[in-house]
Amino acid sequence: MASSLASRLQHSVTPNALRSYLAEFISTFFFVFATAGAAMSTRKMMPDATSDPSSLVAVAVANAFALFVAVYLSANISGGHVNPAVTFGMAVGGHISIPMSIFYWISQMLGSVTACLLLKFTNQQVPTHGIPQDMTGFGGSVLEGVMTFGLVYTVYAAADPRRCVHGAIGPLAIGLIVGANVMASGPFTGGSMNPAYSFGSAVVKGSFKNQAVYWIGPFIGAAVAGLVYDNVVFPAQATDSLRGIGLAGGIAV
Amino acid sequence: MASSLASRLQHSVTPNALRSYLAEFISTFFFVFATAGAAMSTRKMMPDATSDPSSLVAVAVANAFALFVAVYLSANISGGHVNPAVTFGMAVGGHISIPMSIFYWISQMLGSVTACLLLKFTNQQVPTHGIPQDMTGFGGSVLEGVMTFGLVYTVYAAADPRRCVHGAIGPLAIGLIVGANVMASGPFTGGSMNPAYSFGSAVVKGSFKNQAVYWIGPFIGAAVAGLVYDNVVFPAQATDSLRGIGLAGGIAV
Amino acid sequence: MASSLASRLQHSVTPNALRSYLAEFISTFFFVFATAGAAMSTRKMMPDATSDPSSLVAVAVANAFALFVAVYLSANISGGHVNPAVTFGMAVGGHISIPMSIFYWISQMLGSVTACLLLKFTNQQVPTHGIPQDMTGFGGSVLEGVMTFGLVYTVYAAADPRRCVHGAIGPLAIGLIVGANVMASGPFTGGSMNPAYSFGSAVVKGSFKNQAVYWIGPFIGAAVAGLVYDNVVFPAQATDSLRGIGLAGGIAV
Amino acid sequence: MASSLASRLQHSVTPNALRSYLAEFISTFFFVFATAGAAMSTRKMMPDATSDPSSLVAVAVANAFALFVAVYLSANISGGHVNPAVTFGMAVGGHISIPMSIFYWISQMLGSVTACLLLKFTNQQVPTHGIPQDMTGFGGSVLEGVMTFGLVYTVYAAADPRRCVHGAIGPLAIGLIVGANVMASGPFTGGSMNPAYSFGSAVVKGSFKNQAVYWIGPFIGAAVAGLVYDNVVFPAQATDSLRGIGLAGGIAV
Repeated sequence: MASSLASRLQHSVTPNALRSYLAEFISTFFFVFATAGAAMSTRKMMPDATSDPSSLVAVAVANAFALFVAVYLSANISGGHVNPAVTFGMAVGGHISIPMSIFYWISQMLGSVTACLLLKFTNQQVPTHGIPQDMTGFGGSVLEGVMTFGLVYTVYAAADPRRCVHGAIGPLAIGLIVGANVMASGPFTGGSMNPAYSFGSAVVKGSFKNQAVYWIGPFIGAAVAGLVYDNVVFPAQATDSLRGIGLAGGIAV
Repeated sequence: MASSLASRLQHSVTPNALRSYLAEFISTFFFVFATAGAAMSTRKMMPDATSDPSSLVAVAVANAFALFVAVYLSANISGGHVNPAVTFGMAVGGHISIPMSIFYWISQMLGSVTACLLLKFTNQQVPTHGIPQDMTGFGGSVLEGVMTFGLVYTVYAAADPRRCVHGAIGPLAIGLIVGANVMASGPFTGGSMNPAYSFGSAVVKGSFKNQAVYWIGPFIGAAVAGLVYDNVVFPAQATDSLRGIGLAGGIAV
Repeated sequence: MASSLASRLQHSVTPNALRSYLAEFISTFFFVFATAGAAMSTRKMMPDATSDPSSLVAVAVANAFALFVAVYLSANISGGHVNPAVTFGMAVGGHISIPMSIFYWISQMLGSVTACLLLKFTNQQVPTHGIPQDMTGFGGSVLEGVMTFGLVYTVYAAADPRRCVHGAIGPLAIGLIVGANVMASGPFTGGSMNPAYSFGSAVVKGSFKNQAVYWIGPFIGAAVAGLVYDNVVFPAQATDSLRGIGLAGGIAV
Repeated sequence: MASSLASRLQHSVTPNALRSYLAEFISTFFFVFATAGAAMSTRKMMPDATSDPSSLVAVAVANAFALFVAVYLSANISGGHVNPAVTFGMAVGGHISIPMSIFYWISQMLGSVTACLLLKFTNQQVPTHGIPQDMTGFGGSVLEGVMTFGLVYTVYAAADPRRCVHGAIGPLAIGLIVGANVMASGPFTGGSMNPAYSFGSAVVKGSFKNQAVYWIGPFIGAAVAGLVYDNVVFPAQATDSLRGIGLAGGIAV
């Protein structure tokens, strides 16, 4: 038992594993930098940006484009999670070990905090995620959870090697489902679906109000997505290796 | 005759068929959730959103992104219809049997109603499709019908295994033609092209005004598209199996 | 000489050729319907739409999405021209015969006129292309010509079978270069790059003011693009058949 | 030593090298034409465009679309740099020689100046990049540098032949990361990441204020990206030839 834990920990510090953590750090940094930056840009241009649909378009499209690229960049190194909820959803399905997941989470949160610190240095105000007065924390969690279900379900599909031709556009699908859902949830929860993103901006601003909304909902949604995809919609016939459904066609690591 | 019907019904409840219905339910749920959600977001931000082109952009882009992903997710399971009119267009061309079509329709409508119920729970007001006062129901049906013709024609093209390389971006083409047409029709009919979407929001709001516009036009447009594609523009030389032009490169089911 | 003309004309009425004309008609119809429709939508929402950048976004994105799909749909049937200037640019490079070009032009113009008539029926006002008072016809022609150069150059690249992997996203590149250029030219010339589109809306409105701007510039730009691509940037080593650089990977017709 | 220099210079004027310079000139021309043009369009429509988020969307999306196509067009000829900072990042990694880099830079700057001159002729006012009063030159350089790091890192990934399937969408990833970053930086530095673009508009306007911001940051960011990608995240096991990581699947030149 103890030796198994030791072996799993050893498995988590190989050169390939370390490169995965770095890839997650860099991709999460890029994603949060562009996405939180876009939210700051619209507020710089128009202080009342939260009541202007073109700000919603700007933030959602930046989110979609940046997440696509972030996933694209790390897809064949770390699997392109860029999000603690995705890592959790992959762990629930047995595609990544728990020790390795913890290193992924740390890398993602450090990437997000670094991006927010840099944005604070260059652009002053970093916006945090929050919910409007007429929404309960439970309602917000449900909304974030359902959207994260969609995201993680898409990650599973994109990573499925049985999807031949469609594999090439998997990272694009992951980016665009998030973009669409940001449009659907912007004025309600801000459309995070990513606990690392919400955590980074909260750390830099020093305010953790409603933080639970951005962790509980997404983790539950991610777990359900992993279970549903693997067991119900598309039951595995081929055996996957423990570490990673690599995105289709990626290099095995 | 009776035994043929029985065999067709049996064909409709195999494990693969049941997975197809579930895939249609999930994909339609994701599509309607993001699309109707985006319409609600713009109204939350700006009560007078219907006279602001940036709301049109938000809704159309959410539609395009979400439909692309919804089709992408179910393409190699159920064929990626996500829309009763598409299923009807496929049935007209003989690519799906009538009993199976009926299960597809039920799955799609349940997916849409579930999405709208969830949106009502988290976001309060669900918008329905409707036409402005200076438009007749006939005009609206024609507009929806022509656009659905474009959608189903694109689905046929994307599903055509003769389209080699271009197969990979088929789901993207399906999403973006709908996005473009929402921009073209937003202030006129709302740009549905999808009876399940219009049905779901009408059920939740309890108002079926103009509902016929969103069924008659799309069904006629879909039927014409199936007939034109298969018989005139690109007559089949290879024989397709009854159940499903699977999207090119998908896994046979 | 006469027999050569006769043989070329015969070449222009084979079943495959007729299917090409139909494919051009349908694709041009879809393109003009969505693009002109988007311009009408923004004006319906906001009468002063020409001074609102979000209208520019709506029209440009509709243009990009619709042209991508229009090219995608006809790529492996007719080569996916959807535009008389593209056909002219292909004729200059010897990739399509003159008699066949004329049938392409007629199909494209009929598609555009049909789309505009239908829009007039459902949406009342069809907008035409025009230039502002402080721009000369010459300036407008130069602007449209340079942008059409970019479009036709991209069509040549997308159709080049030497572009292996990148072939799959050729139609997307064609759509998006036009989308970008509509953003660059919207308030100046309206961003047509397509004589059939300008012709269709002018016919339906009955006003041919500035029509020359949308023919002369694009035709010159298209011709230059064909000559530059084939002879300077990427000289052909492989011989192409007369009829058609089919988009890479398309089915030979 | 001297003979080595002579041989390198000879290497820089072969027919293939000359075609690369022409491809860079044309692609940079297209990119700057559409991107600077979009900025001009929004100002023509709304003089106060800098405080309107829909202008930000217009410029960012034009940037994304145009850069994707510019890279797509030159990917298998010159490697698709379209940007002196990208060329510098490639030189730092040893993928392009210094003499050849200089010719790339000249081609890119000439392309940008030509595009801006043409825009000045047709559209009158060419906007230049600049930073707001409450931002220091150092802050602006950091922001541009971090974003260029993301761009060049993506170019390295897109050009990496080990990325099998994902190769096809490399140019799209390059375009969209820049689009996302323009949304993040529009009202701060204008979102250039491209010294040739900033240089071209400055030449035509005759104002080189803050020009250093658009050279120093991007060059440092590009160099760091090249070193990190090649040595840390994805160390090369296969040997690359000196001239060019051609985009995956491109034609060797």
